[in-house]
Amino acid sequence: MRLDELAEKLGAELEGDPAIEITGVAPVETAGPADLAFVSSLKYRRMLRSSSAGAVLVDRSVELEGLQLLRCDNPQLVFAAAIGLFDDRPQPVEGVHASAVVADTARLGEGAYVGPFAVLGENVVLGPGARIHPHVVIYPEVKAGRNFTAHAGVVVRERVLLGDDVTLQPGVVLGGDGFGFLPTGQGVAFSVPQAGTVEIGDSVDLGANTTVDRAAVGVTTLGDGVKLDNLVMIAHGCELGDHTILAAQTGVAGSTKLGAGVMTGGQCGFGGHLEIGAGVQCAGQTGVLGDVESGEIVAGTPAVNIGLWRRCSVLLKRLPELFKRVARLEKALETGSDEKN
Amino acid sequence: MRLDELAEKLGAELEGDPAIEITGVAPVETAGPADLAFVSSLKYRRMLRSSSAGAVLVDRSVELEGLQLLRCDNPQLVFAAAIGLFDDRPQPVEGVHASAVVADTARLGEGAYVGPFAVLGENVVLGPGARIHPHVVIYPEVKAGRNFTAHAGVVVRERVLLGDDVTLQPGVVLGGDGFGFLPTGQGVAFSVPQAGTVEIGDSVDLGANTTVDRAAVGVTTLGDGVKLDNLVMIAHGCELGDHTILAAQTGVAGSTKLGAGVMTGGQCGFGGHLEIGAGVQCAGQTGVLGDVESGEIVAGTPAVNIGLWRRCSVLLKRLPELFKRVARLEKALETGSDEKN
Amino acid sequence: MRLDELAEKLGAELEGDPAIEITGVAPVETAGPADLAFVSSLKYRRMLRSSSAGAVLVDRSVELEGLQLLRCDNPQLVFAAAIGLFDDRPQPVEGVHASAVVADTARLGEGAYVGPFAVLGENVVLGPGARIHPHVVIYPEVKAGRNFTAHAGVVVRERVLLGDDVTLQPGVVLGGDGFGFLPTGQGVAFSVPQAGTVEIGDSVDLGANTTVDRAAVGVTTLGDGVKLDNLVMIAHGCELGDHTILAAQTGVAGSTKLGAGVMTGGQCGFGGHLEIGAGVQCAGQTGVLGDVESGEIVAGTPAVNIGLWRRCSVLLKRLPELFKRVARLEKALETGSDEKN
Repeated sequence: MRLDELAEKLGAELEGDPAIEITGVAPVETAGPADLAFVSSLKYRRMLRSSSAGAVLVDRSVELEGLQLLRCDNPQLVFAAAIGLFDDRPQPVEGVHASAVVADTARLGEGAYVGPFAVLGENVVLGPGARIHPHVVIYPEVKAGRNFTAHAGVVVRERVLLGDDVTLQPGVVLGGDGFGFLPTGQGVAFSVPQAGTVEIGDSVDLGANTTVDRAAVGVTTLGDGVKLDNLVMIAHGCELGDHTILAAQTGVAGSTKLGAGVMTGGQCGFGGHLEIGAGVQCAGQTGVLGDVESGEIVAGTPAVNIGLWRRCSVLLKRLPELFKRVARLEKALETGSDEKN
Repeated sequence: MRLDELAEKLGAELEGDPAIEITGVAPVETAGPADLAFVSSLKYRRMLRSSSAGAVLVDRSVELEGLQLLRCDNPQLVFAAAIGLFDDRPQPVEGVHASAVVADTARLGEGAYVGPFAVLGENVVLGPGARIHPHVVIYPEVKAGRNFTAHAGVVVRERVLLGDDVTLQPGVVLGGDGFGFLPTGQGVAFSVPQAGTVEIGDSVDLGANTTVDRAAVGVTTLGDGVKLDNLVMIAHGCELGDHTILAAQTGVAGSTKLGAGVMTGGQCGFGGHLEIGAGVQCAGQTGVLGDVESGEIVAGTPAVNIGLWRRCSVLLKRLPELFKRVARLEKALETGSDEKN
Repeated sequence: MRLDELAEKLGAELEGDPAIEITGVAPVETAGPADLAFVSSLKYRRMLRSSSAGAVLVDRSVELEGLQLLRCDNPQLVFAAAIGLFDDRPQPVEGVHASAVVADTARLGEGAYVGPFAVLGENVVLGPGARIHPHVVIYPEVKAGRNFTAHAGVVVRERVLLGDDVTLQPGVVLGGDGFGFLPTGQGVAFSVPQAGTVEIGDSVDLGANTTVDRAAVGVTTLGDGVKLDNLVMIAHGCELGDHTILAAQTGVAGSTKLGAGVMTGGQCGFGGHLEIGAGVQCAGQTGVLGDVESGEIVAGTPAVNIGLWRRCSVLLKRLPELFKRVARLEKALETGSDEKN
């Protein structure tokens, strides 16, 4: 694609040779003369000087000599669109593979792809545009809206409900039995039947090998626009508000409610039966043991305000010094240091 | 079911209209006039006032006006039984699906269900009542007792032994090769063959995508009644005592032994080659780096007694104050504050 | 196998009865008279006294009475070789199972095994000696070198490239879409297409249910000899240097680079866009939030030098004492303790 054509498609302003041919996108370090590049942070901007990228997407304020530029207001978002333009990954073709086991009572919308060895149970209903990759297992009575994509190895247990435009990466498990065991007095745990289900909103994306458990009674709920990274664990009875974004290996214990727009770094943990307000943000590895007010930004285990956590983290490293200073004070005062108290 | 009939089945005392029809169980917030509800903690008891539940399970001491009550001694346990009474999820039907690949030398007990595309290797022996869901792969020489349930996508590697009443949620991997690599001096790791196996006791439940590795030599052992939540990792050569309960995303490194009845919150980690006594409990995200005495309750990384951890967590937040107080003392004493020491 | 024959095969020096028959290897606690045993740490050496092992592998310096000994320079490495000698686990036999779906354009090297229900997409190329277990799904245009082993349930997404001697434990997902979402101003996240790929070097081993995401643009790279334990998460755009070893449940956020020979304990987390130098080591549960210099050994969250972390961990437990000592000093000085400051 000529650079001027690309600029027009992306709504960007061209600064340089319009006739350059662009055939792909690439990171700035490896981009060649036929690639469009972009740097996401100032940290990488100096790489641009030595880059041989054919063209670079930048915002309107950047000054750069000797490179073809495409200027726009939100270069990160426009670069994402550019990736899509050049995305030529092989895609499955409409049709149900002969080896798939589709129950007589299952219904598929128009344009569906069902790959080899996929299993669709009794009364499964999938909306138009479904892409069921090989080896997906959908238990009975599952219903999904338009454009449901399930990658290889996904398992959706019985009765789970999914909205439109849901994408599940390989190995996602939806509706596994929640972890519910009660002591019976003889040291033997009684398994609480997990007879509830899971409901997933629209435009939800779940990462590889992430698991969302069904409720014992009622529903585990993921709102619209929820994005979960890989290896995330959502326990039975949780409610995730719209546009919740949880990074990899985060876990949410049973019956906890996250308000709309909660965001976490990786490996965060939430205790059970908590109420986390809208817009709460958690740094990576945060351990949330109590309710959190809307809009708070927290870190640490147990979670505290991130500013306090940063100050304390710095001071924690100075504990050896502080102990020495206190000992010196004690010596100066001759009060002695009774460390047993 | 009429409420008086339900009360009788549950062994509960009816207080209210015996003729009410109950058709299901539900959380108290969403329960309707045909639902039985229950609240697990006092925190939720005020919800009962505005609930339109048809009936509520309570213990013998609770005073509540205007609701049909079922009174009993252990309402949580009785509610679990009630969930089971109304659990009408679709169940697989006895029989081996035509597409399953079952080795000639494999043996199945009575009443087995084997779903589409399941693979049972040479010399696999499953006891009566097995439920092998679609896409389960059982490698050669695996043996399991009665009522073995393996959900879709489960993989059981060669020679793993399982007791009676074992249930594996989707994506569980048993008997994957342990993580054993030795330095060889050229920076290249030598892979230690993992020729041992895994033995699982009776009444064991493992959560979605949990992994239990086979030993290099000998056996990785899970005792009777062990319950592991989702995404748990048990490394090669570990021994988990009877009735161990590990919450989600907990990991146990190689050759560590957990005594009977150990319980953890989510995301705990145990170092390798440790001895953890019977009945030890760990708060969420605890990092256990040394042996722990029976009955201890620990938290933090490195793990300490939970009472001490709580006190220190509170004081940690007051470090900025403490540093100021020490500086003030130093000024008062005119000893100066040599922060380099 | 006679003990003298075994000694010769292992290059070890025999001290004892050459005619003893050894039929297997075992941990020292459970080894019987026909087993070869070995203890990895001094901690376990006293177990040897009560062991009934047929023979024991020891280094040249150990003094032990009453046991047949095989002496060598590196008993741990030699024991690993011994495990391999006696490893009689059932192995798959060459051939493509009739039920496998192999695209016409896929190519398989000599000696390949392809198990039941495996799916090999268009233009997949596997080198000689491939072992594709049942239920492996390989998307189109994947290429792997010699001796590629993929266990049941592995999913390799489109265009991923793998070197020689790569082994994937069950449930590994390679090339899942990276976690890339951009805010659009209406609270709705825009999914960045993940059109890049994953490249894996030679002699790489990945543990059960581990996930490695494809890059948005460019490549997520794992160097030669990389070993990842179970449930590890490598995000899009990461680069792992040769011989990186990451223990279970560790996560690396997007675009972070680990130098050669980095080693971590379990449950470590790395933030995004970091540079971690060669040979860096991290204790379990370390949270790395910034760049780390080559050769550093770190612990804690945020990560600090492990020596400092150990000192601070000890002092942290003494905070209750320190607060009391400061209060006593304040009283002695009659400055009062204004805890609000």
